[in-house]
Amino acid sequence: MPTNKPNAYLAAHRDENLAALFELLRIPTSIKDAPQDYNRCAEWLRDRLVASGFAAEILTTPDAPPYVFAEYHTSDTAPTVLLYGHYDVQPPDPLDEWTTEPYDPQVRDGKIFARGAADDKGPLFAHIIGIEALLQTIGLGVNLKVLFEGEEEIGSPHIESFLTEHREKLRADTLVISDTAFYASDLPSISVGLRGMMGVEIVCTGADRDVHSGVYGGLVANPANALARIIADMTDDTGRVTIDGFYDDIIPPSEDELNSWAQVEFDEQKRAADLGLDGFHGGQRGVDPLHRNWAHPTLDCSGISGGHAGPGVKTIIPARANAIITMRLVPGQNPDKIFAALQQFVADHTPRGITSEVTLHAAGRAALFPTDSPYAQAGAAAMQQAFGKAPAWVRCGASIPITEVFQRTMNLDPVMLSIGAPDDNVHSPNEKLDIDMLYKGAEMAAAFYQILAD
Amino acid sequence: MPTNKPNAYLAAHRDENLAALFELLRIPTSIKDAPQDYNRCAEWLRDRLVASGFAAEILTTPDAPPYVFAEYHTSDTAPTVLLYGHYDVQPPDPLDEWTTEPYDPQVRDGKIFARGAADDKGPLFAHIIGIEALLQTIGLGVNLKVLFEGEEEIGSPHIESFLTEHREKLRADTLVISDTAFYASDLPSISVGLRGMMGVEIVCTGADRDVHSGVYGGLVANPANALARIIADMTDDTGRVTIDGFYDDIIPPSEDELNSWAQVEFDEQKRAADLGLDGFHGGQRGVDPLHRNWAHPTLDCSGISGGHAGPGVKTIIPARANAIITMRLVPGQNPDKIFAALQQFVADHTPRGITSEVTLHAAGRAALFPTDSPYAQAGAAAMQQAFGKAPAWVRCGASIPITEVFQRTMNLDPVMLSIGAPDDNVHSPNEKLDIDMLYKGAEMAAAFYQILAD
Repeated sequence: MPTNKPNAYLAAHRDENLAALFELLRIPTSIKDAPQDYNRCAEWLRDRLVASGFAAEILTTPDAPPYVFAEYHTSDTAPTVLLYGHYDVQPPDPLDEWTTEPYDPQVRDGKIFARGAADDKGPLFAHIIGIEALLQTIGLGVNLKVLFEGEEEIGSPHIESFLTEHREKLRADTLVISDTAFYASDLPSISVGLRGMMGVEIVCTGADRDVHSGVYGGLVANPANALARIIADMTDDTGRVTIDGFYDDIIPPSEDELNSWAQVEFDEQKRAADLGLDGFHGGQRGVDPLHRNWAHPTLDCSGISGGHAGPGVKTIIPARANAIITMRLVPGQNPDKIFAALQQFVADHTPRGITSEVTLHAAGRAALFPTDSPYAQAGAAAMQQAFGKAPAWVRCGASIPITEVFQRTMNLDPVMLSIGAPDDNVHSPNEKLDIDMLYKGAEMAAAFYQILAD
Repeated sequence: MPTNKPNAYLAAHRDENLAALFELLRIPTSIKDAPQDYNRCAEWLRDRLVASGFAAEILTTPDAPPYVFAEYHTSDTAPTVLLYGHYDVQPPDPLDEWTTEPYDPQVRDGKIFARGAADDKGPLFAHIIGIEALLQTIGLGVNLKVLFEGEEEIGSPHIESFLTEHREKLRADTLVISDTAFYASDLPSISVGLRGMMGVEIVCTGADRDVHSGVYGGLVANPANALARIIADMTDDTGRVTIDGFYDDIIPPSEDELNSWAQVEFDEQKRAADLGLDGFHGGQRGVDPLHRNWAHPTLDCSGISGGHAGPGVKTIIPARANAIITMRLVPGQNPDKIFAALQQFVADHTPRGITSEVTLHAAGRAALFPTDSPYAQAGAAAMQQAFGKAPAWVRCGASIPITEVFQRTMNLDPVMLSIGAPDDNVHSPNEKLDIDMLYKGAEMAAAFYQILAD
């Protein structure tokens, strides 16, 4: 078997590339950090891409952290790939649960521990060095556009207007994103379905101040009790959501997809035990866990507050109670329609003496991506080549709102090439990425672009 | 009509008595103030009672602020009255809502503005000067024991052990308390029923940490949703409590009491408007407000908390949610039995995947006092004499836990002689007491002891 030149190049540059990644990981870019660090991070990425041979620039907007855009032109006939990644990270707190400092990357046991190691600085860097390995050896073979943003972790609030404004500049034949993890430690995967989400706040108000529960008990309607009932009424005893029309438009998974899911092992006991639970008892009764997580919508109270629930008893009827409801939506569900039905539901379930208000905080549709496109197939082949195992086509219970924005504004289905393990502590203390995973990810990236070039 | 000598004495000493009350009001005795101020206040009261002719002393205990005890012996055949009052006050905050300083009494518009003016330094002082007026003119005619405590506003946590320890010393034929207000500004009243109360906390727990509502949505059971359902299920659509046996032991009001309530005007629109409401829609449907407040038990969520309900959306399934439930109980209801039923209810309504815990924080039975005892009748006659109007026999939706402790430990029914108006801002900024109310209260006290002596 002939030497794979890009892989040989990667192997020869392991140490210097690791040192470079550490530089990137040292720049603090969570929402709690300073704007100048975001600028510094964007400049670092631009400079690296320029050094690699790209035409790279920083695009600024009034509201968002800087976007890094870079372009490498191979030929007018080669396919054009858009690579998306994000350089912002989750806030590192609680800091005292980190074994070593979040912004001081350390290697232990072959793994890089740092905030952003797996989400998403490590994976985007894997693409950069994979591309460099091609450029320094056999050539890239595709036209490549790179877009790195700095506010994915807060829901990419400005990506839609950015994509709309720069649609021509960003035009591509396909989109590749490495911002997901393997389905299991030994099972590479490509996500082809993400749930949508909706976050709403419900506020119930009663008297214009907290009142004495004795002096006014039996007289003043209680907004905390009213809110509890509204939330309780939103689901029935079997865990089904009772909001009018909630399930009407759902597009069920295809036969093919269902068949592929049957191949995926879902270890309920192990995953539940990781959270101190004896099993998973959320969602709709009588439905298997994978379906509940991938193909069923959910309705969760993510926060509730009202009156005095701290230490001690304050004998009041509170003036106000509020709750955050987050839903995960599945293909076919229309957030606008569901929000309208939810507003009606809350209005219908608000008792006399209470006023209620519903505010939409966030919404995004579920996304489904094809498995049979040449780009998805190239991704699968690249994964098999790098990791030695065919990837599973999986869905994901979570949402990556940008994917749906790319579909809607640019008509691009992402190829979600996973880099990372499911236990990488993404969004948690002690985030990590295995160094082998980093380099195999780089090999996968190189293979992906090479396959597309052929 | 012959001159009423005690009243003439009171009239002749108005100014010096007002100055003395101001001294008492200047001593800060809320839970946020210093122990030495409590001592100073107790000493002030003891000294005043000694000057009046009492044998007075300060009784200290390891845990409670000092108790003031005083005794005046008239004869072995005269009835013995125990007068209870409290010299502690509510914390004065929010300070910036006071027109003048809470501990710097000021007269405006014929009213004394100060923390404690109405609750309870003013009323207990009215008794002192009423007693003095008798002693200085026609004689007291009864044996009088006085007990003033300093922790009524925090629920008198040590009164039961104190009464038990000093049962012999405090033994009396009747108990008089002036720690309630007129039912309406022009309607003197005697409270003959107070609701009991129970404060419990319910904690629901799910996974051992907050988890992502996408990654785990449909899998992990949500303790906030579970708690909302438990609370919602505690009442039905008509506002009735569904806890097993909750209403079983209730002793309904007597025909006589119901007849007297029919005479009491309850201005729902006005009282509701004071709280920014168009009416009172709490409690059980189809029951009139006075019954809902006086003779019906209630179940209110006084506080609820779980997950993240602050600004912004955190898309989680929280690990934990908790709520404080306060109930007001009516005669016949047994807090022990109800707490046991509540524990069972919560256990029965806790879904799989959630654990729940119920903790009892506070409990007290409802109290009913006779209207036909000679002491209650003497109180009514004294009120009519001083205020020119027969008092209404009223209940109160709130609880004054000490009354039930006096009943239980000393077998004494209190005669609750109201001094003060319903809008005296008790527990609120700008607490006040009308100076006329103070002196009429003193006349009432004098008349009460005089009638008992006859």
